[in-house]
Amino acid sequence: VEEGDVSSTRSPLVDTACPIGRAATVVGDRWSLLILRHAMLGVTRFDEFKTELGIADNILSSRLGRLVENGLLIKKPYRAGRMRYEYRLTEAGADMLPVLNALAVWGARHSRPVELVAPMQILHTPCGSSLEVGMYCQCCARQAEHDEVAWLRPWRSPRPVRVAEPVD
Amino acid sequence: VEEGDVSSTRSPLVDTACPIGRAATVVGDRWSLLILRHAMLGVTRFDEFKTELGIADNILSSRLGRLVENGLLIKKPYRAGRMRYEYRLTEAGADMLPVLNALAVWGARHSRPVELVAPMQILHTPCGSSLEVGMYCQCCARQAEHDEVAWLRPWRSPRPVRVAEPVD
Repeated sequence: VEEGDVSSTRSPLVDTACPIGRAATVVGDRWSLLILRHAMLGVTRFDEFKTELGIADNILSSRLGRLVENGLLIKKPYRAGRMRYEYRLTEAGADMLPVLNALAVWGARHSRPVELVAPMQILHTPCGSSLEVGMYCQCCARQAEHDEVAWLRPWRSPRPVRVAEPVD
Repeated sequence: VEEGDVSSTRSPLVDTACPIGRAATVVGDRWSLLILRHAMLGVTRFDEFKTELGIADNILSSRLGRLVENGLLIKKPYRAGRMRYEYRLTEAGADMLPVLNALAVWGARHSRPVELVAPMQILHTPCGSSLEVGMYCQCCARQAEHDEVAWLRPWRSPRPVRVAEPVD
């Protein structure tokens, strides 16, 4: 395993060098992902998030605060009278769409609802067809298969590591 | 907001109906995502995960246990003498690759390492070029833009909801 090469020299740099690690630190918790899901669906107000998620005030408040702090949401006053705020997606927040889409595809394929329901679809509005979530190769003009993907993590090794295959 | 329509009739069904919610329940924590990252890189043994992640035994043990329970990893004895186990990706675990790739792209775009390092690349091994992570439309033969994506969540509404745009 190439990743093992430098484990003895592990330092904070190594951890922050990985963009997956940095992203997981920001959004690697269930509530933050669910808040972002609802933000994508147009929810903006504290009470709406609360009703949608069935979450305690203090937890919602802390998660919204962290998403604001990390630049995924922006908190804006939304009317002149009694002070109220809404939470809107920034570009960094909106750019979580591919993560949420990938979670949707995984959840549809590998988990089941308590009762059977028609599945979620991710649609391309110009044509109305379902989008393929994945990795597209411009050069080969096709989607990549799992066994064709390698990760190059230059801070660990100059050689790309082919991602592991599932066991049979 | 269409999602608000049925909030008064919220039930467990509503929560498990959403594949993003189900996926977030299974992998919506930082350590599980980081364990899966290392599993993709070929790490299989408890001690290796421990060294790589700098994580306490009991936390690693509980997270590995949950990933096994949820079918993303499989625990197999790996030698005949003193009993030892390795953790290998199942198909469900390997299918987390698009989620990890999407996190890598987000992290590269919206967060910064402590020290400047050459960025992670996701490569297509047959041609060596970088893969595009995102949503591809077969019908239009191109990647979808953020403002062209809608989510159809039939258990909430028969009408697709266009995903929210970021604020200016």
